[in-house]
Amino acid sequence: MEILQNVTEQLKTDHKESYAAWLQYKKIEDFSLLENYQKWFENLASLADSVVIESAKKELLLGLSSMLGVQPTFSTERKAAAGIVLGTSVSIANQIEIDFEQLNDDGYVIKTVTTEEKSTIFLLGKEDTGVLYAAFHLLRLMQNRESMDHLDILENPKNQLRMINHWDNMDGSIERGYAGNSIFYSGNKFNDELNRIEDYARLLSSVGINGVSINNVNVHKVETDLITSSLLPKVAEVAAIFRAYGIKTFLSVNYASTIEIGNLETADPLDTGVQEWWKNKAKEIYRYIPDFGGFIVKADSEHRPGPFTYNRNHADGANMLATALEPFGGLVVWRCFVYNCLQDWRDRSTDRARAAYDHFKPLDGQFHPNVILQIKNGPMDFQVREAVSPLFGAMEQTNQMMEFQITQEYTGQQRHLCYLVPQWKEILDFDTFAKGEGSPVKNIVDGSLFQSRHSGIAAVSNIGNDYNWTGHTLAQANLYGFGRLTWNPDLSSETITNEWTLQTFGKDELVVQQVSQMLLDSWRIYENYTSPLGVGWMVNPSHHYGPNVDGYEYSVWGTYHFADYQGIGVDRTVKAGTGYTAQYFKENADRYEALETCPDELLLFFHHVPYTHRLKSGETVIQHIYNTHFEGVQQAEELTERWTLLEGKIDQERYEDILKRLQEQANHSKEWRDIINTYFYRKSGINDEKYRTIY
Amino acid sequence: MEILQNVTEQLKTDHKESYAAWLQYKKIEDFSLLENYQKWFENLASLADSVVIESAKKELLLGLSSMLGVQPTFSTERKAAAGIVLGTSVSIANQIEIDFEQLNDDGYVIKTVTTEEKSTIFLLGKEDTGVLYAAFHLLRLMQNRESMDHLDILENPKNQLRMINHWDNMDGSIERGYAGNSIFYSGNKFNDELNRIEDYARLLSSVGINGVSINNVNVHKVETDLITSSLLPKVAEVAAIFRAYGIKTFLSVNYASTIEIGNLETADPLDTGVQEWWKNKAKEIYRYIPDFGGFIVKADSEHRPGPFTYNRNHADGANMLATALEPFGGLVVWRCFVYNCLQDWRDRSTDRARAAYDHFKPLDGQFHPNVILQIKNGPMDFQVREAVSPLFGAMEQTNQMMEFQITQEYTGQQRHLCYLVPQWKEILDFDTFAKGEGSPVKNIVDGSLFQSRHSGIAAVSNIGNDYNWTGHTLAQANLYGFGRLTWNPDLSSETITNEWTLQTFGKDELVVQQVSQMLLDSWRIYENYTSPLGVGWMVNPSHHYGPNVDGYEYSVWGTYHFADYQGIGVDRTVKAGTGYTAQYFKENADRYEALETCPDELLLFFHHVPYTHRLKSGETVIQHIYNTHFEGVQQAEELTERWTLLEGKIDQERYEDILKRLQEQANHSKEWRDIINTYFYRKSGINDEKYRTIY
Repeated sequence: MEILQNVTEQLKTDHKESYAAWLQYKKIEDFSLLENYQKWFENLASLADSVVIESAKKELLLGLSSMLGVQPTFSTERKAAAGIVLGTSVSIANQIEIDFEQLNDDGYVIKTVTTEEKSTIFLLGKEDTGVLYAAFHLLRLMQNRESMDHLDILENPKNQLRMINHWDNMDGSIERGYAGNSIFYSGNKFNDELNRIEDYARLLSSVGINGVSINNVNVHKVETDLITSSLLPKVAEVAAIFRAYGIKTFLSVNYASTIEIGNLETADPLDTGVQEWWKNKAKEIYRYIPDFGGFIVKADSEHRPGPFTYNRNHADGANMLATALEPFGGLVVWRCFVYNCLQDWRDRSTDRARAAYDHFKPLDGQFHPNVILQIKNGPMDFQVREAVSPLFGAMEQTNQMMEFQITQEYTGQQRHLCYLVPQWKEILDFDTFAKGEGSPVKNIVDGSLFQSRHSGIAAVSNIGNDYNWTGHTLAQANLYGFGRLTWNPDLSSETITNEWTLQTFGKDELVVQQVSQMLLDSWRIYENYTSPLGVGWMVNPSHHYGPNVDGYEYSVWGTYHFADYQGIGVDRTVKAGTGYTAQYFKENADRYEALETCPDELLLFFHHVPYTHRLKSGETVIQHIYNTHFEGVQQAEELTERWTLLEGKIDQERYEDILKRLQEQANHSKEWRDIINTYFYRKSGINDEKYRTIY
Repeated sequence: MEILQNVTEQLKTDHKESYAAWLQYKKIEDFSLLENYQKWFENLASLADSVVIESAKKELLLGLSSMLGVQPTFSTERKAAAGIVLGTSVSIANQIEIDFEQLNDDGYVIKTVTTEEKSTIFLLGKEDTGVLYAAFHLLRLMQNRESMDHLDILENPKNQLRMINHWDNMDGSIERGYAGNSIFYSGNKFNDELNRIEDYARLLSSVGINGVSINNVNVHKVETDLITSSLLPKVAEVAAIFRAYGIKTFLSVNYASTIEIGNLETADPLDTGVQEWWKNKAKEIYRYIPDFGGFIVKADSEHRPGPFTYNRNHADGANMLATALEPFGGLVVWRCFVYNCLQDWRDRSTDRARAAYDHFKPLDGQFHPNVILQIKNGPMDFQVREAVSPLFGAMEQTNQMMEFQITQEYTGQQRHLCYLVPQWKEILDFDTFAKGEGSPVKNIVDGSLFQSRHSGIAAVSNIGNDYNWTGHTLAQANLYGFGRLTWNPDLSSETITNEWTLQTFGKDELVVQQVSQMLLDSWRIYENYTSPLGVGWMVNPSHHYGPNVDGYEYSVWGTYHFADYQGIGVDRTVKAGTGYTAQYFKENADRYEALETCPDELLLFFHHVPYTHRLKSGETVIQHIYNTHFEGVQQAEELTERWTLLEGKIDQERYEDILKRLQEQANHSKEWRDIINTYFYRKSGINDEKYRTIY
């Protein structure tokens, strides 16, 4: 055990900066700032206590000792002169005028109060989680070298559930993982060493994450046992680590558990035996983990079992589980990624994009209050560009939450730089018109538009046991950005990006400016040299890395581009296509239906057009393909050049790791460019206007 | 051990006909024939003895007891009246007038000699292997219900080395295996039960195979140890089983063995340490296996190590091993499958088809006498149709042998019926013009054209531990046909096919006629619905099953079709292409170079032509593609129908197994048809003249 624990310690020593991610807590060299900061920490008082507040104190001590070189201690009461006070609404009583009514459960206040006799910074949460978030916030301010003399901050997370989904398998592999193996499991058991999980919890908590599901939504044989007494003690250990950071633990469950492990012959949700089994199962789980979050369920999707087998619908399935969890406050997060994955490519009338809406919309109002439907951002599958799922806002009486993918399955797999915050913002800001203009997705998933009981945002994790967590060190920004954006979808991409860069690489102006801009440019660069104009896919089957224009063209997956010698694109109009556009509220439906109003970047998602069709940009489609692909490669090469400007300003390990990835990206972008351009040149016979090399 | 041995016994019981393959030895029901046959077996005499002759006797006893219901015994001398006498040139002395000079080492005579006092069938071999082959020949005659009253047969195998290459790995998997796992290995060791190998040896010996290499040419870590004392005792056990059937055992070796297992730092063939190591290694191997056949070597090919690392050539590498084996009579079989497998698809000047010739031709005359170059039949890789390798006949002073592939990697993987004997015959009959007209490939690989010291034909095995050996029961015919054709390349496809069908399914006329014709038609049918006009590939990468027109188009493998909106094909001419045609002798070079004389079936292998180019058949290329693909599916469907005519005439297990595969083929052929047709319709925009459905 001693040796194993050293693995994490060793990482922290050998790969200090890479491992620390944005919690660098670098020593402050500016003497006057140091002096100013230090005065506040002469007196630290915590008026409340709990495991979560212990974490807040631990984190403050860690950050302070590291940044200030002091080793302060906490007292349990407020002392004279300057100082910092931690407390909750209950503990703080009337020591300060705070309207705790303004705070929601995870909200907090940071306030500098200066009177003649004493100066205090209050870190106050409505609950203890707020105190922890406030502590992380204060440390972020310190990392960013901001003054603490006049703080007056009130923060409430916009989203109730802020969740990470792990697609980790107990054999240690991670489905769609690009940063090593699982930090939870190996060899079909939990890792002996669990202390890396605490550092992971710190990272998550520092950006406000409050839920984590720790196993793959594809629940295989071994993982089905996670809800049995053989593995629940270990799940409880992990849950205890997360609990201390305000994070609830969820499990993905096998819908057919009653058959697989329950000795029943059915998983019919209306069968009383099945219902009883799950009720007892819930009781058992809550005995081990009293604050267990609930279940994530992928049912009747990609060959996973589900209620369809018994001629029941998704509401029947979800409600049965919800009834079992309800007495304990648990949630059922039911995924809407349901479609025919054995489609005939010859059949142009079936449209995978329609599937989630077609399946779930008719069930609006039938789900129990503790069921949340988790909907992928787009109707296909985490492409570099696709339309926003029309299901958002379409079910007024149903809890909905967003599913993003931080892991870069289709966006370069953490070998290419693709910073996703701008994409996520675009999606969250998308106006659904569900209640007329001003009904953006973010107001649906934060529950405000329809006063939903439960709501939030989840995302598929991009971390693994690589020493830098995310393979590409710059991909740490996606995890950071996801958390911050989920806390507050109104933050600008620039704000988040700057925050992250400052904390991660320090305050050098060139570094902050370059890195932030590289991140902000990267999504569009990746889009430029990959699949054009929203049509998606064009990747190698199975692993999804690298270009293959026809890779999914003649497959069962419903993912086609229909390129022929004349044109390309999927006709999803009502007039002549699959009728998908009608799933949107009128304003969007009309906009997408008409070629004239459909935005360029989604043109091929909604329409099949000739290569000679002119975009709003004035370019033809084919020339746009050529231009963006040549441009994308140039931009990818420039990323490398931009990075090399920072040599010497960043520790050598991270500098070189990132350089290597950027170089791979630049090389691989040429493969994309040449294959896509050649494919379309060979197919269309249309020359590049600029006579650049196409093979 | 007892239980494990039962696995094979169980197979023989549970899957009698499937397992027995062509050695059915069905009871003879025709009473007069039975009587006639029985008389011969009243007296059986063997005038010689050896382990091989023991096998001959065992096989005769097995066959006779099964077909005739008698349990004869052998005496050691000839008795009066009718009888059968086994003997070798030495043992037979002057009991019969036979000019043993007419026999080569594996040759034999079967002769019925009737005098007034006695009638005798002599089964005489020059050596004991001839006796064994004669016994199998006699049993074949009996299975085919032929009269034995006036036999006068003299058989010499045309090819000296008649070999099967196994691509079996010790983990039990088989590279490109489509009939279960290895019969030799599992779990990184030799199987405990080796007795199935004896049945395999019987099958091989019955068709004249005399060499077998028992491990994959890609020699991985565990298999590198096969030539060490840890595994040689087991290799020797296997070799002993094969030895009793006249089959020499070979091993594939890792060229870098000196480094991997020899504790040397180099594998430089001119290094005296390396040379010494291999000499000692050869000594050690021959201590375990005195008649060890030799080494198969895949070097400097597809990431395998080889002499190139040390700036040495293939002759240096092969000769070093040959020197080590020479004192023991061992051979080095050096594969010529050497090409750049990291090619840039953009580079049209590099032509994988040129590689073997370019690498090896300059080395003619430099190889030791006990080295044989093993050359794949075509310059690419076992496609359904490709040109014959121009290396055949191009190295007058070098031993050459043919490598065929019985396992159907690119020809339906034993899920589709594709009987390869007609293909092999076409290749063996191909006139190279190496010494003017009448220089067919078969006369090069049998050694006659250039009086080569060693020569022969090898093929990659198609068997595994499936109960019917070959997955598709009809694929047994490919193993049978390979052996028979290698024994005598002048046998017609029809003769071989009829022989096999009769032995395998019995003498029902409809069965023989249908099955034989289905086999003979199948190669062309498979070609019809797959890759057209010799261009090859168009398969899914890695596993190579199923259609994917661009599957290898933008890859590193040198396997392209260059289809664009105007045309398709690889220009390999001297005039405008890669110059590959010049590797042939003049008559063939001219024929392939000119569009007018290039045969249709290889058109796209040698030329890039417009879709509107007219074939000699009168069809355009595009219409040919459409026509053959529609026709191919129809033919595949007809195969199923033709098979169902035989219901009740074939045991139920084999009937249903084959029916299932034929149905899969018919279905899967539609996938091929529609993807290929759609691909070319979308690319060319040219309509099918007959307006059939293209998607």
